[in-house]
Amino acid sequence: MINAGDMNGSGNLMDFLDEPFPDVGTYEDFHTIDWLREKSRDTDRHRKITSKSKESIWEFIKSLLDAWSGWVVMLLIGLLAGTLAGVIDLAVDWMTDLKEGVCLSAFWYSHEQCCWTSNETTFDDRDKCPQWQKWSELLVSQSEIKTILSGFIIRGYLGKWTLLIKTVTLVLVVSSGLSLGKEGPLVHVACCCGNFFSSLFSKYSKNEGKRREVLSAAAAAGVSVAFGAPIGGVLFSLEEVSYYFPLKTLWRSFFAALVAAFTLRSINPFGNSRLVLFYVEYHTPWYMAELFPFILLGVFGGLWGTLFIRCNIAWCRRRKTTRLGKYPVLEVIVITAITAIIAYPNPYTRRSTSELISELFNDCGALESSQLCDYINDPNMTRPVDDIPDRPAGPGVYTAMWQLALALVFKIVITIFTFGMKIPSGLFIPSMAVGAMAGRMVGIGVEQLAYHHHDWIIFRNWCRPGADCVTPGLYAMVGAAACLGGVTRMTVSLVVIMFELTGGLEYIVPLMAAAVTSKWVADAFGKEGIYEAHIHLNGYPFLDVKDEFTHRTLATDVMRPRRGEAPLSVLTQDSMTVEDVETLIKETDYNGFPVVVSKDSERLIGFAQRRELILAIKNARQRQDGVVSNSIVYFTEEPPELPPNSPHPLKLRRILNLSPFTVTDHTPMETVVDIFRKLGLRQCLVTRSGRLLGIITKKDVLRHMAQMANQDPESIMFN
Amino acid sequence: MINAGDMNGSGNLMDFLDEPFPDVGTYEDFHTIDWLREKSRDTDRHRKITSKSKESIWEFIKSLLDAWSGWVVMLLIGLLAGTLAGVIDLAVDWMTDLKEGVCLSAFWYSHEQCCWTSNETTFDDRDKCPQWQKWSELLVSQSEIKTILSGFIIRGYLGKWTLLIKTVTLVLVVSSGLSLGKEGPLVHVACCCGNFFSSLFSKYSKNEGKRREVLSAAAAAGVSVAFGAPIGGVLFSLEEVSYYFPLKTLWRSFFAALVAAFTLRSINPFGNSRLVLFYVEYHTPWYMAELFPFILLGVFGGLWGTLFIRCNIAWCRRRKTTRLGKYPVLEVIVITAITAIIAYPNPYTRRSTSELISELFNDCGALESSQLCDYINDPNMTRPVDDIPDRPAGPGVYTAMWQLALALVFKIVITIFTFGMKIPSGLFIPSMAVGAMAGRMVGIGVEQLAYHHHDWIIFRNWCRPGADCVTPGLYAMVGAAACLGGVTRMTVSLVVIMFELTGGLEYIVPLMAAAVTSKWVADAFGKEGIYEAHIHLNGYPFLDVKDEFTHRTLATDVMRPRRGEAPLSVLTQDSMTVEDVETLIKETDYNGFPVVVSKDSERLIGFAQRRELILAIKNARQRQDGVVSNSIVYFTEEPPELPPNSPHPLKLRRILNLSPFTVTDHTPMETVVDIFRKLGLRQCLVTRSGRLLGIITKKDVLRHMAQMANQDPESIMFN
Repeated sequence: MINAGDMNGSGNLMDFLDEPFPDVGTYEDFHTIDWLREKSRDTDRHRKITSKSKESIWEFIKSLLDAWSGWVVMLLIGLLAGTLAGVIDLAVDWMTDLKEGVCLSAFWYSHEQCCWTSNETTFDDRDKCPQWQKWSELLVSQSEIKTILSGFIIRGYLGKWTLLIKTVTLVLVVSSGLSLGKEGPLVHVACCCGNFFSSLFSKYSKNEGKRREVLSAAAAAGVSVAFGAPIGGVLFSLEEVSYYFPLKTLWRSFFAALVAAFTLRSINPFGNSRLVLFYVEYHTPWYMAELFPFILLGVFGGLWGTLFIRCNIAWCRRRKTTRLGKYPVLEVIVITAITAIIAYPNPYTRRSTSELISELFNDCGALESSQLCDYINDPNMTRPVDDIPDRPAGPGVYTAMWQLALALVFKIVITIFTFGMKIPSGLFIPSMAVGAMAGRMVGIGVEQLAYHHHDWIIFRNWCRPGADCVTPGLYAMVGAAACLGGVTRMTVSLVVIMFELTGGLEYIVPLMAAAVTSKWVADAFGKEGIYEAHIHLNGYPFLDVKDEFTHRTLATDVMRPRRGEAPLSVLTQDSMTVEDVETLIKETDYNGFPVVVSKDSERLIGFAQRRELILAIKNARQRQDGVVSNSIVYFTEEPPELPPNSPHPLKLRRILNLSPFTVTDHTPMETVVDIFRKLGLRQCLVTRSGRLLGIITKKDVLRHMAQMANQDPESIMFN
Repeated sequence: MINAGDMNGSGNLMDFLDEPFPDVGTYEDFHTIDWLREKSRDTDRHRKITSKSKESIWEFIKSLLDAWSGWVVMLLIGLLAGTLAGVIDLAVDWMTDLKEGVCLSAFWYSHEQCCWTSNETTFDDRDKCPQWQKWSELLVSQSEIKTILSGFIIRGYLGKWTLLIKTVTLVLVVSSGLSLGKEGPLVHVACCCGNFFSSLFSKYSKNEGKRREVLSAAAAAGVSVAFGAPIGGVLFSLEEVSYYFPLKTLWRSFFAALVAAFTLRSINPFGNSRLVLFYVEYHTPWYMAELFPFILLGVFGGLWGTLFIRCNIAWCRRRKTTRLGKYPVLEVIVITAITAIIAYPNPYTRRSTSELISELFNDCGALESSQLCDYINDPNMTRPVDDIPDRPAGPGVYTAMWQLALALVFKIVITIFTFGMKIPSGLFIPSMAVGAMAGRMVGIGVEQLAYHHHDWIIFRNWCRPGADCVTPGLYAMVGAAACLGGVTRMTVSLVVIMFELTGGLEYIVPLMAAAVTSKWVADAFGKEGIYEAHIHLNGYPFLDVKDEFTHRTLATDVMRPRRGEAPLSVLTQDSMTVEDVETLIKETDYNGFPVVVSKDSERLIGFAQRRELILAIKNARQRQDGVVSNSIVYFTEEPPELPPNSPHPLKLRRILNLSPFTVTDHTPMETVVDIFRKLGLRQCLVTRSGRLLGIITKKDVLRHMAQMANQDPESIMFN
């Protein structure tokens, strides 16, 4: 019933939205995309395909293919990301084997002696460093991915060469023993896959908004394969990475993560057919009284997060501003050398970080030979293997304690300097290692306290002699979660990742308590997580979903032109010549110009993009006869009445955005920020009772927010 | 630096935003709230408290209390919801014990014989039905909660009496053996707790937007205690229930769910100190070839979802439209009677649904006495208890198979008629039961096929004789996930809930595969999940986040007035008398009126709410001397110049919303829908080159969407 009118109306509209010249609707490098525009362009494309699909079978098949291309892209991303992760894992193993040519035993990673040898050869590896650092000239951290997903254009950052270099360097970095994790680079690798596959389908390659949906799902697939945590990956993408489309991409992210995890499992690089990275099995439940040390670990995690973010950002700022930044290769070599030399003497820093975490998480069984499990056994007791009561610590445990303490300090310091170097780097594994070391020490402390003082009131109820009441491995797990939470400020996704990593479903409450505490403590010192901090450091225009804007400023305080500034550069709908427009374009560097009825009335008609104006005029001058510098540019539906001998007018209504976003000058900035954030706007026009007053761009909003937070507004550098 | 100007500007603004008369800023029943307005009111309140907090220590403490009140509310909700869930579980046990007075054995639920007796007494219980149905006159389903969270006002739905009645009836319903789950009612109970506690803090009681944040978190706590799945609960709230604030409430929802789960665990109603409802432990991994039956189960789940939604909605529509709806108590009695009579002969429908699911999920150990585990053992084999190879099925399994088939058909039919009756009802448990029965049957089928035909190509690689390759319990789990997904269309939260319920972390991929398939199949037949379907059935104004609007209509096609209709009712800024305004209010029933400069220029100044106009005029007539019917109502900052003897004018600028939301008439409806959805608008004004053309309300948007989907636009009943 309304459809007929709908179709009629659409014919009209089609003219304006047709894209007659190439490059219309693209963006320049280091600019922000306009989400609303991208979305409506995609709907147009979709409608065209749907209406065409009724014409022939071939068109119908094409429309089906188009509808399924999203899933196909997800499938391909999942397959490639999973395969690459598998290849990387296998290659890391192979590289590690190369290092260990001296070791005769085949079971190198359970054999303490062999690890000694393997780490001596780290010096050989270090000699190779200059070679591979040459390949890795890309600063690689999650912050760029996050900014791109928020609608920023950084060309080449997700290209094919990046994918290749990244994959190769990741193998080298992970096997080199630096204090870095692989989740950040794997997210980047997965996003490169996503970018590559989305370039194969016009639905995604031609629409920057749709492309970001794919990248968001790819990020989930990246975390999924980095840890074997598909659900955690999806949540991580939702909570930390994605910007504009949480629920919509959830479902596809889920699919991509599933396929990636499944592919990785089929390749089976760890040889245990488990998805889980650190499988743990504890034999005792936890007790209410233990919540106190868990919360203490949460506090530690929050403090670590604050310390790490402040020191790391200060160091990265120094790197950016001083001459240090000019020698990235030298920096990597020095840090690698220091890591190798200091890490070598301590058995807990010598081995790979994943193995360390794995050992710290483990419960001490009866057959465990690790130094951490060197307890004094009661020779009179014969109990089943699994259920060992608390025992006094032996000399090995005491040695382990001070070695762990030293390792903890070293790890804290070296991670601060390592993250942010110009090599592929993730933060999860080092953060978890810091937390796991602290947690294990606290755990052993509580265990010994409970053993020696089981008559204290707090222990009396749940820790009788001969009972297995404290599991130090659980403390390590809780500590790891707390430290990871302090650095990244993840909440729900953190707990999900932790229990996907460990399979420890029974310990949700301790994990949650530690995560909550850690976030509270860290937030008390500063709201920014490490990724947001790096985004600010680099001056990217990222409008954080989590930031609250609570100041009383109004749109009129933020809009340009300010009082005393030159009036707003506008186009009129039917009185400017081509030359006028060209002069305006030449003299200003704005991204677009509002179009008004006339300079007097200032009533807003629409908005024209600078890039499209340039293209349209260039195109008209080349092709259309009669369009000269004197031609009138008109944005109305019908050309203005012209004197008989005047040159041919230039019709530009089709590049005019007839629905520019407007707010009144009295709109609170809080609402404006909300609108920019939720609708993904690039600019917004300010009116008062129908008259155009000014314009607010995303950069203006970000600078205003920086100013209100007493930060330097000039730190926001891009549009 | 900008702060000074900010403070100056704010003094001005304060006047307009002060609330001089009571009830300003409240809503009428069955109306939708304006999210942007609620948000900006809360920011104002927050700013006032912050600026006051510098005045004295007492004010500072008050501001601290205010900042923490959110967490306090969450804590209280968690504690109360957890306690109520524990009390309900204990009371259900006690009621079940009451029923089983005849049973002498204390271990009634592991004792088959005792269950026989217990179910005979169901007839006694049925006799009590009329008593408790009198208490339960509230239609109870998730759809109302979802609509309220989207910003709709239904008074009394979350009151204290509802909480009490709900808690009592839930005990009765769950112990009565009807084909219903407890998660829906527990979500409602938790929301009532949330509503109660938020009424204690002015921050929440006076702001409908903030209150909905609390309710959203409370819904998460409800799911958390219904299943012992805190993370799944948070995701469920995010994916299915919440509307406007996904990321913001995530963190608090997480806290509430944590506290609720923890409280429930402390009460420990199931006596096993586990959070997990159905703990399973399988001893064999799954194999690639098994994906085929898993996907088949996904297809079954999708079909079941479609069948259930269509039939249930058809039945509920019949209940609404025919005389059937007038006898809710009779309907409940009849359905309970039919359930009791037909369920009685079949052992699988006779026991409680949770126990049934538990048994179906279980792997057959060597000591299992269940009929489902009646396999023929090889007397020559002596193997460890856990690792039993596939065996041929015994007569018990065959009996179980046809009993399960009958139970499946019965469960499908009875659930369709039961859900939506006027008693507290959830859908998770019955849906899972349907899926678990189908899954177990498929599992046993595959197992026997693999045993008898282990030389077939598909089995040869992974299922040699003497190997334990097929776990029928896993199929039941996968089937349950598929059926739950088909009905609710959950995705990520479904998988998280399933593995929180079962602790089966290794089986993410099968669960995901089934969930994906089930959603695809069900979506092919219709996009609506059961909750959306019930919302549509009831005509609530719910703008679904997941619906895509892809038609080419423009704002001008949807706005009122349409062509040929009377012109838009507007107020002018300084030329109408109090009487004119009162007449306009009397003659129309709009929720608000745009204010323009003059009827000729039609340039928009702001928007005034009907409710506040009425209150302001009433207030002015009562108090302010000189305001009479002839007084000029003015919305400008300064009163107009009036002739000397004219009556005292009425200044109404403070109730004027100076930043009404506007779009141009050329804005695509797709963008308008997006704006309504993301910003939670109630209405939006339509302009063309600064002139007011018309208005679009949320109801207009919903009606237009219904029309474009070829549904009856009159089905949207409320504002």
